[in-house]
Amino acid sequence: MGHIKKLKCLVCGSEYNENEVMYTCPKCGDEGLLEVEYDYEAIKKEFTKEYLQNNKMYNLWRYLPILPINDPSKIGPLQVGFTPLYPVERIRADLGVSNLYIKDDGRNPTASLKDRASAIVTAKARELGLNEITCASTGNAASSLAGATASTGLKSYIFVPKTAPVAKLTQLLVFGATVFAVNGTYDEAFELSIKATKEFGWYNRNTGFNPYTVEGKKTVALEIAEQLNFDVPDYVFVSVGDGNIISGVYKGFFDLLNLGFIEKMPTLVPVQAEGCAPVVDAVNGDGIIRPVTPNTIADSISVGIPRSGIMAVKYIKETKGFGIKVSDEEILSAIKYLGTMSGVFGEPAASTSFAGYLKALKEGLVKKDDKVVVIITGNGLKDIASAMKSVKEPIYIDPTIEDVKKKLNEII
Amino acid sequence: MGHIKKLKCLVCGSEYNENEVMYTCPKCGDEGLLEVEYDYEAIKKEFTKEYLQNNKMYNLWRYLPILPINDPSKIGPLQVGFTPLYPVERIRADLGVSNLYIKDDGRNPTASLKDRASAIVTAKARELGLNEITCASTGNAASSLAGATASTGLKSYIFVPKTAPVAKLTQLLVFGATVFAVNGTYDEAFELSIKATKEFGWYNRNTGFNPYTVEGKKTVALEIAEQLNFDVPDYVFVSVGDGNIISGVYKGFFDLLNLGFIEKMPTLVPVQAEGCAPVVDAVNGDGIIRPVTPNTIADSISVGIPRSGIMAVKYIKETKGFGIKVSDEEILSAIKYLGTMSGVFGEPAASTSFAGYLKALKEGLVKKDDKVVVIITGNGLKDIASAMKSVKEPIYIDPTIEDVKKKLNEII
Repeated sequence: MGHIKKLKCLVCGSEYNENEVMYTCPKCGDEGLLEVEYDYEAIKKEFTKEYLQNNKMYNLWRYLPILPINDPSKIGPLQVGFTPLYPVERIRADLGVSNLYIKDDGRNPTASLKDRASAIVTAKARELGLNEITCASTGNAASSLAGATASTGLKSYIFVPKTAPVAKLTQLLVFGATVFAVNGTYDEAFELSIKATKEFGWYNRNTGFNPYTVEGKKTVALEIAEQLNFDVPDYVFVSVGDGNIISGVYKGFFDLLNLGFIEKMPTLVPVQAEGCAPVVDAVNGDGIIRPVTPNTIADSISVGIPRSGIMAVKYIKETKGFGIKVSDEEILSAIKYLGTMSGVFGEPAASTSFAGYLKALKEGLVKKDDKVVVIITGNGLKDIASAMKSVKEPIYIDPTIEDVKKKLNEII
Repeated sequence: MGHIKKLKCLVCGSEYNENEVMYTCPKCGDEGLLEVEYDYEAIKKEFTKEYLQNNKMYNLWRYLPILPINDPSKIGPLQVGFTPLYPVERIRADLGVSNLYIKDDGRNPTASLKDRASAIVTAKARELGLNEITCASTGNAASSLAGATASTGLKSYIFVPKTAPVAKLTQLLVFGATVFAVNGTYDEAFELSIKATKEFGWYNRNTGFNPYTVEGKKTVALEIAEQLNFDVPDYVFVSVGDGNIISGVYKGFFDLLNLGFIEKMPTLVPVQAEGCAPVVDAVNGDGIIRPVTPNTIADSISVGIPRSGIMAVKYIKETKGFGIKVSDEEILSAIKYLGTMSGVFGEPAASTSFAGYLKALKEGLVKKDDKVVVIITGNGLKDIASAMKSVKEPIYIDPTIEDVKKKLNEII
């Protein structure tokens, strides 16, 4: 059995037993996201630094004692997590900083951090005996869910805005999902998936709405902490759409703090695109989320109504975090700079966090010797059309050495 | 210092010291690929099963004692290798087989097995004090080299056919490579890169031509063996273009056999597309490689002049291997089946091996209880246009639950 103590409503504080409620707080409706509270004293008895040192399972299940799983036999086979944390020496030298790390979460099975949530939710569905899962997604949550269900034999029904990048749609279809391409926004797809959950009894993986998405995503923070030998970074930069990933990052460090693995929380820095920044505006302003009409190249964070927004703002403020906004041009430039200087290729939404770091450094919001982790949430192969805007064309040549020489002379 | 004893010409048997020759045998020219021979007795003293059990480095460098590296400080930072080996339970159940494994090598940093060779060659270039590397490639070798050079600060000059999929070209450009898109075939790009090597003094990573590419690729076999607890598979299915990967797979098992880690070699099964099968034709026929004009959707193995062909045929025959040819339709069908049944998304060339396995099983060339590993060499996100041909369109809907119900009724 797992170690969940209760589920607690973020808005009204009501507490529920694990089997009393599936999604949000019945009193508060869709805004009443539930926090998963664990029995830390029980966990401490088995989950120690020594436990981790002796654990050869290099994926997210190495943290099983602090995951919301009651029946480990329901865990799927895909190898999710334990992605690289790079000290990026070339970027450090170029920027004159001494303590920057890049967490390349595009190395997950379907090439995004979302695999972490889908791994947990899929196991949860199987615990509940539910064989059909639905979600709404800008693309990555969907392909991660479809990959997870393909590997376990569940069925998935996915709602995506029809404007999702073709790579993400194709990935979904290859994984055998039933894909509804909605003639509307992500926010409309989200509402539709909630209705379909009620109508058809499918298990719902929606970001935030399902309390276990945060529990999956928190594993990125558990890894960062362990990879840094539990010497917590000063700042963690995270691209923000729904606010669910950054909530997960908070929760991971929060669990470790309560378990005595770490001694402080890092400051969380949400980064959003200028054309879609409701969470950053709330964090830097009065704390109130105000829906916007999104306009950005970064499709994965093109979210006008951030479903985990209230949770994210609360958590970020608790770490004394501040928000950064970047332009689409800064995002494209960050894709190219990160790729050229580290060999890590991030999609636009993923590279937004790095663009935010570059801006924060320039503006003096972080210092050159601060210990900073920037999370890259998805692989650039997911959105080639956008990446192409970040680079110049190749050099077209005839197959002769003379033409090579000529063209080389032109570029020198 | 590493443990290389000598480099030996595959054609004439001439032997060289490591520092006597850089690429092929001076007597035999481009056909005289060099095999790297190690001092197994010296290696045995440090490299044991216990050494591996205590080694927490879960990437290809865990095999350092049998890699051609003399100065480990020249190793680049990207985390290459130790990709998942999946027992694919759903596929086993569906096909009624008991011992099938999928090695998902699309999980490497730039999403293909080629990262293994580029990691070794880049370290080698740095040992030699060379800061500029070139290669010709159908795409994956190039992006892996560009990623490796980006992470280490070397410069890369890449020759690709201008028909290479746009995802691969874009990835190269994001990694900051100088990319020559050649108005010609891969074979012409290959010749051009050799000329450029002579002309400009760049270090050449070309498949086969550089003897250390096989040494990098062999690590996939080392991992398979270790992941199976050194209980060697009966068959390993490998998609074949140049023949370099399958040569590497042979070399990995060969090294382990000579070191006493394993007791037999697996039978190697090369799989090629019907429209480009010079290696399979040679293996199944008289052993002679005859160049062809390639015609297949599987761009990564669309190689009319297989540069490691002689080596591959020799090695495959030593394992009593046989070749399989599959149609482009079978490749597309294998992409969809593998994705839907396992959550592993392979590009066309990568899925060719799996299509070959399905065919070999159907034709009784392998038995249902044979222990088989199928290597998936690259991620499907590398070639979305082809993957799209393997799937039906999504279901386009208006954002109403009524439309969801209507469309669901239509597909049931």
